[in-house]
Amino acid sequence: MTAPSTARPRLRVGMVGYAFMGVAHSHAWRTAPRFFDLPLEVDMAVVAGRREPELRAAAARLGWRETTTDWRTLVARDDVDLVDICTPGDTHEEIALAALAAGKHVLCEKPLANTVAQAEAMAAAAAAAPGQVAMVGFTYRRVPAIQLARTLVVEGRIGQVRHVRAQYLQDWIADPSVPLSWRLDKQKAGSGALGDIGAHVVDLAQFITGEQVTGVSAILETFVHERPVADEFTGLSGSSSSSGATGPVTVDDAAVFLARMSGGGLATFEATRFAYGRKNAIRLEINGSKGSLAFDFEDMNVLHYFDASEPAVTAGFRRIVVTEPEHAYVAAWWPAGHGLGYEHAFTHQAVDLVRAIAAGDHPAPTFADGLQVQRVLDAVERSAAADSTWTPIETQEA
Amino acid sequence: MTAPSTARPRLRVGMVGYAFMGVAHSHAWRTAPRFFDLPLEVDMAVVAGRREPELRAAAARLGWRETTTDWRTLVARDDVDLVDICTPGDTHEEIALAALAAGKHVLCEKPLANTVAQAEAMAAAAAAAPGQVAMVGFTYRRVPAIQLARTLVVEGRIGQVRHVRAQYLQDWIADPSVPLSWRLDKQKAGSGALGDIGAHVVDLAQFITGEQVTGVSAILETFVHERPVADEFTGLSGSSSSSGATGPVTVDDAAVFLARMSGGGLATFEATRFAYGRKNAIRLEINGSKGSLAFDFEDMNVLHYFDASEPAVTAGFRRIVVTEPEHAYVAAWWPAGHGLGYEHAFTHQAVDLVRAIAAGDHPAPTFADGLQVQRVLDAVERSAAADSTWTPIETQEA
Amino acid sequence: MTAPSTARPRLRVGMVGYAFMGVAHSHAWRTAPRFFDLPLEVDMAVVAGRREPELRAAAARLGWRETTTDWRTLVARDDVDLVDICTPGDTHEEIALAALAAGKHVLCEKPLANTVAQAEAMAAAAAAAPGQVAMVGFTYRRVPAIQLARTLVVEGRIGQVRHVRAQYLQDWIADPSVPLSWRLDKQKAGSGALGDIGAHVVDLAQFITGEQVTGVSAILETFVHERPVADEFTGLSGSSSSSGATGPVTVDDAAVFLARMSGGGLATFEATRFAYGRKNAIRLEINGSKGSLAFDFEDMNVLHYFDASEPAVTAGFRRIVVTEPEHAYVAAWWPAGHGLGYEHAFTHQAVDLVRAIAAGDHPAPTFADGLQVQRVLDAVERSAAADSTWTPIETQEA
Amino acid sequence: MTAPSTARPRLRVGMVGYAFMGVAHSHAWRTAPRFFDLPLEVDMAVVAGRREPELRAAAARLGWRETTTDWRTLVARDDVDLVDICTPGDTHEEIALAALAAGKHVLCEKPLANTVAQAEAMAAAAAAAPGQVAMVGFTYRRVPAIQLARTLVVEGRIGQVRHVRAQYLQDWIADPSVPLSWRLDKQKAGSGALGDIGAHVVDLAQFITGEQVTGVSAILETFVHERPVADEFTGLSGSSSSSGATGPVTVDDAAVFLARMSGGGLATFEATRFAYGRKNAIRLEINGSKGSLAFDFEDMNVLHYFDASEPAVTAGFRRIVVTEPEHAYVAAWWPAGHGLGYEHAFTHQAVDLVRAIAAGDHPAPTFADGLQVQRVLDAVERSAAADSTWTPIETQEA
Repeated sequence: MTAPSTARPRLRVGMVGYAFMGVAHSHAWRTAPRFFDLPLEVDMAVVAGRREPELRAAAARLGWRETTTDWRTLVARDDVDLVDICTPGDTHEEIALAALAAGKHVLCEKPLANTVAQAEAMAAAAAAAPGQVAMVGFTYRRVPAIQLARTLVVEGRIGQVRHVRAQYLQDWIADPSVPLSWRLDKQKAGSGALGDIGAHVVDLAQFITGEQVTGVSAILETFVHERPVADEFTGLSGSSSSSGATGPVTVDDAAVFLARMSGGGLATFEATRFAYGRKNAIRLEINGSKGSLAFDFEDMNVLHYFDASEPAVTAGFRRIVVTEPEHAYVAAWWPAGHGLGYEHAFTHQAVDLVRAIAAGDHPAPTFADGLQVQRVLDAVERSAAADSTWTPIETQEA
Repeated sequence: MTAPSTARPRLRVGMVGYAFMGVAHSHAWRTAPRFFDLPLEVDMAVVAGRREPELRAAAARLGWRETTTDWRTLVARDDVDLVDICTPGDTHEEIALAALAAGKHVLCEKPLANTVAQAEAMAAAAAAAPGQVAMVGFTYRRVPAIQLARTLVVEGRIGQVRHVRAQYLQDWIADPSVPLSWRLDKQKAGSGALGDIGAHVVDLAQFITGEQVTGVSAILETFVHERPVADEFTGLSGSSSSSGATGPVTVDDAAVFLARMSGGGLATFEATRFAYGRKNAIRLEINGSKGSLAFDFEDMNVLHYFDASEPAVTAGFRRIVVTEPEHAYVAAWWPAGHGLGYEHAFTHQAVDLVRAIAAGDHPAPTFADGLQVQRVLDAVERSAAADSTWTPIETQEA
Repeated sequence: MTAPSTARPRLRVGMVGYAFMGVAHSHAWRTAPRFFDLPLEVDMAVVAGRREPELRAAAARLGWRETTTDWRTLVARDDVDLVDICTPGDTHEEIALAALAAGKHVLCEKPLANTVAQAEAMAAAAAAAPGQVAMVGFTYRRVPAIQLARTLVVEGRIGQVRHVRAQYLQDWIADPSVPLSWRLDKQKAGSGALGDIGAHVVDLAQFITGEQVTGVSAILETFVHERPVADEFTGLSGSSSSSGATGPVTVDDAAVFLARMSGGGLATFEATRFAYGRKNAIRLEINGSKGSLAFDFEDMNVLHYFDASEPAVTAGFRRIVVTEPEHAYVAAWWPAGHGLGYEHAFTHQAVDLVRAIAAGDHPAPTFADGLQVQRVLDAVERSAAADSTWTPIETQEA
Repeated sequence: MTAPSTARPRLRVGMVGYAFMGVAHSHAWRTAPRFFDLPLEVDMAVVAGRREPELRAAAARLGWRETTTDWRTLVARDDVDLVDICTPGDTHEEIALAALAAGKHVLCEKPLANTVAQAEAMAAAAAAAPGQVAMVGFTYRRVPAIQLARTLVVEGRIGQVRHVRAQYLQDWIADPSVPLSWRLDKQKAGSGALGDIGAHVVDLAQFITGEQVTGVSAILETFVHERPVADEFTGLSGSSSSSGATGPVTVDDAAVFLARMSGGGLATFEATRFAYGRKNAIRLEINGSKGSLAFDFEDMNVLHYFDASEPAVTAGFRRIVVTEPEHAYVAAWWPAGHGLGYEHAFTHQAVDLVRAIAAGDHPAPTFADGLQVQRVLDAVERSAAADSTWTPIETQEA
């Protein structure tokens, strides 16, 4: 007997770009309906890319029904409900504006744009299309341990936030022989460590605390100014060059900044690709008037929580293994202790997005949230360019 | 333009059972071709179960084309190449023997069987069908950190093994109000913690060291002898009972045993479902004449390695984040530091199985390996029943 | 103005032996009055040893007023109130019996003796001298984190003990070129890893749980049977041999055993000097019906505690930094977080001993406690000699 | 036979102040000769304090021969060779200048002074007395793990330093009901978290890297502006107030700052007494072009080291248990794995100081080093007062 088809309305997805992020998003679109009850049937309708043979191979591999080498075609298709933007930051604005104008829902990878002006245009377009969802892919919000951190703050367990220390540490270009890639090209990437990984910890710090960064003092640094030109750019893992040619790195290798949070607390931020031995160490530590939280993505299924109301004799950071059915998203997966991995957060993002579309909600992080992060990144760049001058950031209504 | 179909030969899979393990295997069959280059095209042909409506819903959810309520039908179908057995242990022998007799490849969940006699029959049948693959699902072998542990032993980095300490600690029935389920029923499960989780650490200890357990002294214990009867059995997460009725627990809650390894080392094993706070703590520590290894599944992307040849001043356990492209399976996934989760090992198992079938190889762990583990479990039960008497185990050619 | 003298009664101490343990005890006698209010003034009266010049140098270094090369003289002196025995185990009985017969209080290093018969004689002598204190030096009991573990058990926070896993892992003779020393000589040391370090974890497991080991199944192993003869024995750190001569190791290198606790729980014990990378890893993990505890001496100021009554969403092992004024002994030392080291437990032992003597109490662990541990060690040896046969242990009144 | 006296020249010490630091220094003076071979015999000659009865009790407790209520008397005594200054920062300059003028060696607690002007005067006085030792008590340098960190940098194992992240996190006044003490009084303490604990991490970062901080951008914050007045000030652990009176906190509760190191690297510094759950978390992480280091005083016997020259497959942070005889100072203490505690660093400081005096050397950290740290603290205060303006620091010859 053949398995039955479902009778739910369809959500037809068109994805632009199929590199690292495209792979992760595709996995999420394929997997979300397998583990979660979704109100809409996800249809992986079409994927857009520039180079024909690679595109077709990727579509087959990733599970997309059709392909197109022109994203404008994709955006214009009647049979696409949601445009999923997985391209470098320099293209986000154009694609997102077109998609919104065409009446599509939009999921856009982070950072929202390469400039505040672009992000403002995108947020304005989203605001002008209230019937459409416009979400930005700060995916780490949907790691269950991060959700738990947010919940504990909302429940008042942390109290008034006094300190945030947020770090995103990698080492993938600490070796100067690692070749150039688009992520090291200011034209495409907008910035380096700042926008690529710093954006994540800015978003996470704001998300967990429910506060905004109100000002920064910053340093940006590029440690390695010339790198080999790879024969071919292949996303994160550039193949090594054979030609001997080199080219300039035009973005920051590292960003460090002080900040104030809107609730009065102090924050330190650090994003670097030069921390040897740290692979994807997204570390957040928050100290409040009632307790503390600590997280490190290198142990992503764990949240550490200190409850200052405990008697001193038994108080201590609790290592919460965030794999219980009571934790966000976990009941859909495996029994306690059977940890999740990197890509699960993408699946959770897809789940929340589909449910929000069906419910007519606007899932966070919205384009407005993405714009606010962009303003922080922009202030960091301006402060760094002005000898670390304190640079305030316009806050927005939450 | 429509995405092209592939032209590889197909491997048509029929799966029996669709609970916890069936969900994990289905995910693996769906996902393996998306991340790995496979020589065969996986066709999720048919799934067998007993209860019609649940079966059909599961098939739709999990991605199986067809369903059948009679596993014999599934085994007999010409359009099934591989039978994937995800049922409780009391059914393994019958299904596997039928599948092998029907000329199918077989992947059978662990433990291979509920008795040595059953396992012997299965291993004999597999040996009599050398053209068919017969693999047992000791999936944790395919966690990249475990693969690395094995590699370091093979490379001689650990030297002669002197100590193994192996623990599998859970707490899901530490609370006596957790209701009965088939895993607490000797008829279905064969044993309790011993066969369910102890089997894994026996296999891992033998796999990593390349040695066999040659004798044991054991204690089995049941701490909670009566439990509520759940209104409905639903795998690991039994729903709570409302009737007030109770029934007997007929398996062990915990197993502890000493062992000798075939290379002369000592081992301690422990499997329990009563270690409050330990969720799925598969812990292995191995001390050899040249170095040591330590692993804990609660931090599954990490292997700790001590190299005794280092000068004392800088020697120390290295925390290796096993997410580099150089590590087994990892290049197919994400960049360094973007950790994997529980289900990835199932995908790796599917990948190795498909590749072995295409190559005409016999992928480990074979049914013979499963039999050897079964002999250890059996010796544990006999020793425990005889006041911890030392109980030797017949070793087999590796 | 000269600092005033105190007017308290004096406790005049005579110490026998001045190697590793003698150094630690001397530090404790010197330091206890500096940080704790003691009801008696400690007088480090006399130290006994065999070799004159070394003895005199040690006395000067360690702070003893006088020396004698005849421990019998020391025991007989009227101006000695307490005999502190820091010699190898083969001498404990004779010295302790003489000291008790002479009306002295006794502190005897562990293990209490090399045989049960000796330990029985010592316990009997202590029982026959109820006005004298007879304490055995299971010093690790007085690490603040261990005290906290005991307190939590006493308070019922752990509930019924179901599992104990106790390990004492070292690596100081894992290298076969490490020369012989008295600790590898059965005549002097009684046993190897078993009595030297296994005794500690037996005592700790019994102390923390408040239960006794009621039976064991054991393996003892010697991995390296011949070792170089050191030119000179110098305690733990034997100097390397230049002669090329070798001699036999007559004790166990490692001991592993299963046990039952008197409360019905299961235990695994392991003591080894062959765990490369583990330096002094005294690890205890206890799982009960209400919670769990975990300790590792390599992080000695920390106790991990899991409270099973916490809601699942925030339950987790708490990492308690046991350096608060509320923790045992800590208020006398430094502010929170300024951790203690190995020798502090010896100071705490001296403090408790002095206070008990002043109060007329019998501080634990008594010689009876030491005898009970000796019975466990003896049962381990008999079980190991009889193919791991289950070997019960006579329990005693607590 | 009476233990012999030693024939070494004496170093007669006079200590000013006997609170927290005085207790630690006294322990060091008593203990150093017991574990280390010293070229001079330490004579704890005299201690100065203001309140007679407490002073005399302290002298008896801590082991000082004599007392004086006038530090000027102490400084002037012919029978004092070394003046050990353990008072609050506002008195350092006057005492140190007097001691140097009187021809004494000086050990001065940190921070060297409360202002740069004071520190300059002190450094100038020290420079003008080249035959006298003038050392500042940045004691944490002498934790063996910190020594190892420095050694690895010197050996070139870390390469060019790119990142320093340095934190000193405490929580002892996170509760607003903790009363006032001199450490919260700008007049006495100079600053709050900045000078008390921030000074330590500035010194450590500079010591380990061998570089200097060349500029900062900073924020200082006071979270709790009014606190109860304690009935009596008793150092760190102020007793609680009963009067209901409150008074102002006049120092910073927390300091955060960005910095540049003289080698071109970036640094983030944070010092706070408001990090709930962190007790004395001195954390240093250094990333260089060849490797990385990480340290946390809450696990003070451990250094983590990543060697980037390792093949990726086995590279990982090594957890070095810094208790081997090969590690600095350790051979004098206990066998491997028998960890040291907080006060050991004071003993090591005393050892190095005595040896330097005997050898005619100038032990680091000198007053010049203390001045340089003071300049950093001063720049932090100026930057914080000027809206985080980048504030350069005059570097000095190493």
